[in-house]
Amino acid sequence: MVLTRSTKELYEEYTSHMKKIADVRHAAAVLQWDEETYLPPKGASFRGQQMATLSEIAHEWSIDPKLGDLMTELKGRGDLDEPGGKNISLSLEDYTRQKKFTPAFIRLLSETTSRCFHTWIKARKDNSFTIFRDDLDKMIQLKKQEAEMAGYEQHPYNALLDQYERGCTVTLLDNVFNLVREPLKDLLHRIQARPSIDDSFLHRTYPKQKQWDFGMEVIRHLGFDFEAGRQDISEHPFTTSFNKFDVRITTRIDEQDFSNMAWSCIHETGHALYEQGLPDQYYGLPLGEYASLSIHESQSRLWENNVGRSLDWWRHWYPILLTYFPGQLEGVSVEQFYQGINKVKASLIRTEADEVSYHFHVMIRYELEKSLIEGSLSVNDIPSYWNQRYADYLGVRVPDDKQGCLQDVHWSHGSLGYFPTYSLGSFYAAQLFATAGEQAPSIQSAVQQGDTAPLLHWLREHVHQHGRRYTSEELCRHATGQTLDIQYFLHYLLDKYKKIYKF
Amino acid sequence: MVLTRSTKELYEEYTSHMKKIADVRHAAAVLQWDEETYLPPKGASFRGQQMATLSEIAHEWSIDPKLGDLMTELKGRGDLDEPGGKNISLSLEDYTRQKKFTPAFIRLLSETTSRCFHTWIKARKDNSFTIFRDDLDKMIQLKKQEAEMAGYEQHPYNALLDQYERGCTVTLLDNVFNLVREPLKDLLHRIQARPSIDDSFLHRTYPKQKQWDFGMEVIRHLGFDFEAGRQDISEHPFTTSFNKFDVRITTRIDEQDFSNMAWSCIHETGHALYEQGLPDQYYGLPLGEYASLSIHESQSRLWENNVGRSLDWWRHWYPILLTYFPGQLEGVSVEQFYQGINKVKASLIRTEADEVSYHFHVMIRYELEKSLIEGSLSVNDIPSYWNQRYADYLGVRVPDDKQGCLQDVHWSHGSLGYFPTYSLGSFYAAQLFATAGEQAPSIQSAVQQGDTAPLLHWLREHVHQHGRRYTSEELCRHATGQTLDIQYFLHYLLDKYKKIYKF
Repeated sequence: MVLTRSTKELYEEYTSHMKKIADVRHAAAVLQWDEETYLPPKGASFRGQQMATLSEIAHEWSIDPKLGDLMTELKGRGDLDEPGGKNISLSLEDYTRQKKFTPAFIRLLSETTSRCFHTWIKARKDNSFTIFRDDLDKMIQLKKQEAEMAGYEQHPYNALLDQYERGCTVTLLDNVFNLVREPLKDLLHRIQARPSIDDSFLHRTYPKQKQWDFGMEVIRHLGFDFEAGRQDISEHPFTTSFNKFDVRITTRIDEQDFSNMAWSCIHETGHALYEQGLPDQYYGLPLGEYASLSIHESQSRLWENNVGRSLDWWRHWYPILLTYFPGQLEGVSVEQFYQGINKVKASLIRTEADEVSYHFHVMIRYELEKSLIEGSLSVNDIPSYWNQRYADYLGVRVPDDKQGCLQDVHWSHGSLGYFPTYSLGSFYAAQLFATAGEQAPSIQSAVQQGDTAPLLHWLREHVHQHGRRYTSEELCRHATGQTLDIQYFLHYLLDKYKKIYKF
Repeated sequence: MVLTRSTKELYEEYTSHMKKIADVRHAAAVLQWDEETYLPPKGASFRGQQMATLSEIAHEWSIDPKLGDLMTELKGRGDLDEPGGKNISLSLEDYTRQKKFTPAFIRLLSETTSRCFHTWIKARKDNSFTIFRDDLDKMIQLKKQEAEMAGYEQHPYNALLDQYERGCTVTLLDNVFNLVREPLKDLLHRIQARPSIDDSFLHRTYPKQKQWDFGMEVIRHLGFDFEAGRQDISEHPFTTSFNKFDVRITTRIDEQDFSNMAWSCIHETGHALYEQGLPDQYYGLPLGEYASLSIHESQSRLWENNVGRSLDWWRHWYPILLTYFPGQLEGVSVEQFYQGINKVKASLIRTEADEVSYHFHVMIRYELEKSLIEGSLSVNDIPSYWNQRYADYLGVRVPDDKQGCLQDVHWSHGSLGYFPTYSLGSFYAAQLFATAGEQAPSIQSAVQQGDTAPLLHWLREHVHQHGRRYTSEELCRHATGQTLDIQYFLHYLLDKYKKIYKF
């Protein structure tokens, strides 16, 4: 059948199949978005079932042998145009990877995930790792099995890393973290030796509606297209996309903590600007998808930190902020405000960490996961390992599991190998931001006027438009002329905090 | 394969298949709800595609021959319990009906619908039936074909009616409408001979937020469970349900027209109370579905009119309304308010019609559709037929097509045979409401105290809990002891309007 048909026909069948998978996946994403924003409480149980059914359909279609045959034939023919060839080659990689797992394994993983998530909720509620231990152990065993099924070179953890970040390995991450660990420790110590910064003004009462209005004004000015997206409130901020013309972000508002909303808005806007900049002609195909998790995170971090925590940008925005909160910020200069929002404080919770200490949180999880997967650490030892590392790296005492090894949802979802992409995101962000400034000095001067359009334009051209054409490292080389160079990040941090903490 | 398995196993396979179809259908409904409430404007094109994909899946699954074999075997065995047997028998009816249509016909119908809808939008915008004519003609031809494929006795229109209302026929509707036509004409003339009622106070300025708050208070008191549903704003009010624990209604607010929001809230709440009262153990199965469109409409109309436009109910609610709008309603007594909200005025637009003239709008569409399907009227003649009937029945001159035969979306959707269920809804509502009051006189006295819980309880027991077990006529007999008796409706109207218009 396949052999007698033209390449054009076969390619159209492939794109049509892929678009339908995307339709179903995005429908599931709409249901997920709704669950986290507007779902009435009693609706949750049937909603879970409805999403599971959609996921099943998408999974079945993505491992349909007819799709495999089609792609193999197309690849073999070798007469597709360049984007077509790239799409087929990436889709075939995904397909081949998926096919390595038996349906029985997928089902087991899905059941374990569901159970693990509920046990984690309970363990956190009761503040006891012991409750989570056995199910987590089963999950780790399954993840080891997954690594064997997927195949790997050198280290089983590579198989898991590769899921989230094509080509990412233990070797690469060890190198990167070895390069940052000591300089960051040193920076942290130098900061800790200086007087603490006063950020109490961030904890005065900031009324909800005013915070929301300010956030919306910022988002709009950063270039978020409200004709092709929206913002809502949810318990945990997130970005989701149903296609580049419907990208949704959420935020949360704490009246006693201005930071909570402000930088979550900017962070999620960074993710959203990437999604709104992906090429729509490749909807459902690899070239229409984001490059990798670390590149996605580089976009959120770049806007949140390199822009949204810079003095340049606030010189424009602070006077505007003052019109929203004249009382709360009375007597606070833009310099004091800038110092306050960049206060460094080694603490227990990753998601609340500053730009310096954040990466120790990630390193601890990376080292821990690697040891669990290679078998040098057992699940029983997680709390003591965790608490020891927090003492070593950050000098903080972990008072209980809830504020310790139970704080993140990731393991309960089976997401092992995910955390490193958070740090890689910051590292890529620094390199991309510095390069943009070097290539087009006008970008920096525009930011000082509050105009980030030239920066967005640069990112659209050098990052967004390429979809999944390149791996993270290829994209980095393409955009900056070299692969990841950690010195950009270290230089950025050192330069910034030297000035803030005056050493 | 099927033959060697136990009835229990086969029935479980059937329910599992049906539940998955329901999951996909409800997922499509979530996407539809989102489209009408929160979708950013540019998101519409991909959204259409995503919903189409889900509908395709649900349709394919619902005509899967394996499902047919399974149900045929189960029916043949005859050893299911009563609810199981009923589910199988109704599902097999649906399946058999669906199988009568070739995939090519379904595709053609879907394409025609899509084109027809867009042409209708354009025709309305340009206020010209001519633009719509050719596509509508194609739709009518397809509907005739559909009737032939579905099969019918006596009249081809019966095949279309049966889709929305099992067992509904031209004979039944002719009987019913023949019984109401003259009495309603007579009533209308008697009302028109009386002085007009002043309802100008309904058109003072009613601020949006206050209207919303009042609407929410009413909805809550009527028994809508906000833990299992929500209300939002949309252009056209509607009710949608993703399962009985997630039922959503929408409303719209016009600051210059209090009626617009108030009775749409109550109407949609009536629909929603029905959905929230369906048995959840039959999710995805016929016994978990609503009985018919007319019974659904009977629930919305009962709450909107028999309760929500009654003097009894407003005696309780009017003082509360006054606390929301003391200025707007200054000097308006509850009796004047009651008269104002029940003002009868023959007019052009069905959705804005009062309880008396409404049914002429439906009759006109019914008579027109019947003639089109039997071929005694051609599409070209619709505007002149329409305008003549509006002159005859309502004594109004139709100034243009937009306010005439282009006003409703239904034909562009291919929904021929749908309109009669609107009138049947009112007729059943009157009979159910009267019977409830006869069976439990305390219901009426409770309503006077603003307590509608006993009425809801009666409807839950006599209507909601039965799902799709009975046809409309069977349900009516079960709940009221007799099949539809139009005298209940006529008596209700006559009694009410005699008092209001004092004749």
